[in-house]
Amino acid sequence: SNETIASLYLAACEKTLVDYQVNKVILPDGERYKTLATWQTIFDDLLAQQHVRSTTLLALGGGVVGDITGFAAACYMRGVNYIQVPTTLLAQVDSAVGGKTAVNHPAGKNMIGAFYQPSCVLIDTTTLQTLPEREYCAGLAEVIKYGLIRDAEFWEWLQDNMPALLARDSQAVAYMISRSCQNKADIVAADERESGQRALLNYGHTFAHALETMLGYGEILHGEAVAIGMLVAAQVSEALTWLSGEDVKKLECILKMANLPTKLPKGVNAQHLLPLMKLDKKVVGSTIRLVLLQSIGHAVITDEVGPDVIERVLRAS
Amino acid sequence: SNETIASLYLAACEKTLVDYQVNKVILPDGERYKTLATWQTIFDDLLAQQHVRSTTLLALGGGVVGDITGFAAACYMRGVNYIQVPTTLLAQVDSAVGGKTAVNHPAGKNMIGAFYQPSCVLIDTTTLQTLPEREYCAGLAEVIKYGLIRDAEFWEWLQDNMPALLARDSQAVAYMISRSCQNKADIVAADERESGQRALLNYGHTFAHALETMLGYGEILHGEAVAIGMLVAAQVSEALTWLSGEDVKKLECILKMANLPTKLPKGVNAQHLLPLMKLDKKVVGSTIRLVLLQSIGHAVITDEVGPDVIERVLRAS
Repeated sequence: SNETIASLYLAACEKTLVDYQVNKVILPDGERYKTLATWQTIFDDLLAQQHVRSTTLLALGGGVVGDITGFAAACYMRGVNYIQVPTTLLAQVDSAVGGKTAVNHPAGKNMIGAFYQPSCVLIDTTTLQTLPEREYCAGLAEVIKYGLIRDAEFWEWLQDNMPALLARDSQAVAYMISRSCQNKADIVAADERESGQRALLNYGHTFAHALETMLGYGEILHGEAVAIGMLVAAQVSEALTWLSGEDVKKLECILKMANLPTKLPKGVNAQHLLPLMKLDKKVVGSTIRLVLLQSIGHAVITDEVGPDVIERVLRAS
Repeated sequence: SNETIASLYLAACEKTLVDYQVNKVILPDGERYKTLATWQTIFDDLLAQQHVRSTTLLALGGGVVGDITGFAAACYMRGVNYIQVPTTLLAQVDSAVGGKTAVNHPAGKNMIGAFYQPSCVLIDTTTLQTLPEREYCAGLAEVIKYGLIRDAEFWEWLQDNMPALLARDSQAVAYMISRSCQNKADIVAADERESGQRALLNYGHTFAHALETMLGYGEILHGEAVAIGMLVAAQVSEALTWLSGEDVKKLECILKMANLPTKLPKGVNAQHLLPLMKLDKKVVGSTIRLVLLQSIGHAVITDEVGPDVIERVLRAS
C-alpha cells in the first residue's frame, strides 16, 4: 500500500487476513515514485521476510500501487500471484483490470513492465468516499473513454447521469464501475497482449503520455491528461471529417461537466509534444499510430494520419 | 553482448544484420554483473535509440548475457521479441533454452526474473573453440545432469564419449548439445512455468545456489557448484537407499573425468549452507523440496527428506 491509503484502510484489510502471514510494504504516495527504485524495495522486503513462490502480493491503493505491485509480482521469483484492491476510481475502472503492470522511466511513462494478470480484482466502492474530488473526476475520464470507443449506449447514460455520478450516488457509481470493467474485460479477453484491438483502450493516451512526460510525473493527473488527449483525438477525427463538430462539442461539454480540463496547461507548447508522441510504445516504424473516432461509440486504430494534421490540431487547441 | 564476447564475435554477427538498424549494448563480463543495475542500463540505451515494441533484442554471449537480455526483453515496453545466440557450452545446453530469465539479488540467485521464451535459439558450435577449458567443463555438468535425471541411454553415451567431448570433437559436441537441448525442450514444453516436472531440471541446484550465494557470485562457476550439488543430491539419494554406492561412485568418476569438483571448496562450512537452501524458490512451506535420484536416469521431486538427513550428508561430504 502507500502511506495515504495505509492509514485509511490497511487495518480493515488486515482484519480479513488474520489467518495468514502478512507483511506490509508501505510505498511513498505519488506517480513520481512509480520507479524501478521504488519497485526494487519490494523485493528487499519480500526476501528479508523469506517469501517464496507460493506467496501472494496484495495491492491496496490506486493505480501507482497497483502497477508497481503487479510488476513486482510478475518478476518476484519469476512470478507470484497477486490481488488488486483498487481504492481510486481510476484504478477501479481501468488500471487494476487487464494485467498491464509497469513503472516509469525518465524517458517515458510505463516503459518498463509486464502483461501479468491478477488472480482477483476486489473493488469496494465505499473506499471512494475518502477520494479527493480532483482524483475522482480524473477517474471519470477513463469512464467516458469506454463510452466513446465502443459503448454508445453507456455514453448516453453518462450524459444523463453525470450529476448523480458527481454526487457519488452509490447505485450510479456501482453501475458505472461494473459497466466500465465489463468493457475493459471484453477487450482484454480478446487481445491480452495488445496485438490488435486492445490498443483502442489507448484512446487519448498517446497524447496524454507525451503531456505527462513533458510536465514531469505528478504535475497533472493521468485522467486529466487523458481528458485533454481524448479531446485532441476527437479534433483530429473531426479534421478527417469522421466526427462532426457537434460531437466534439458534446465531448467538450461532458468533460467540463466532470470538472476535467479541456485545454493544454498554460506554458505548454504544442510543438514540443509531437517528438514525445513518437517515443510512445504504440509507434510502429516512424508513423504515429493513433486511436481515433469514426463516430461516438466506435474507435479505430490508424497510422495514416500525417504529423502535419496532428500539429495543426495541436496548434489550434 | 559482453566485453569479452563482443571482441570475438560481434563483428561477424553484425555482418549478418546489415539490413537492420542495429544498436549495441556491451555489458561488463561476469556473474557479479547479473544485477538489476546492469539490467537497467539496457533500457537507458533502448530508449535513447528510440526502440519501440517491434524491436528484437539479440543476446550474444553466455548465460549471464542471455539471462539479463531475456529479462530486459520481457520487461521493455511490457515485452519485445528476443533471440538467444549462446556462446558458452552452459548457455547452449541449458540457460538459453526454456525461457527462464533473471538477475540476481544480494539475498539470492535468480530471485528477480520472468518466464519469457526467446523467438529463436541459434547455436554456433564453433564459438566453443574460444571457450576457456574451465568454463567448457562447467557446461558439461548440466549435460551430465540430463543423463542423470531422465536419459539413461545418454548417460551411457557420455561415459563412453567423455574423452571425445573433452577433445571438443565437433561431431560428439554437436550430438551432446542437440540431445541436451531436446531433453530440456521436452521438459519445458510439458511444464513451462515449473508447476511440476520442470523442477527436475533443478537437480543439484538447490545446493548449488546456496553455495554460490555463500561464496559470492563469480567465486565458483555455476556448473562447478552444480557438479558438487549433484553429488550431494546423489549421496542424499543413497542415504534413502534409492541409489547404490556404486552409482554414486560412477557419478563421482564422470565428474572427475570432466575436470569438475566433487568436494566443497576449502573453508566452506556445510552447516551454513542449510539456512540458505531454505530461501530457494523451490521451498514450499518450511520443508525443503529436493530433486533426488530413484535411479540413474530417473529423478523425482520430494519434500519428505528431513533437514537432519541433508545435514548428515553435508557433514560427511
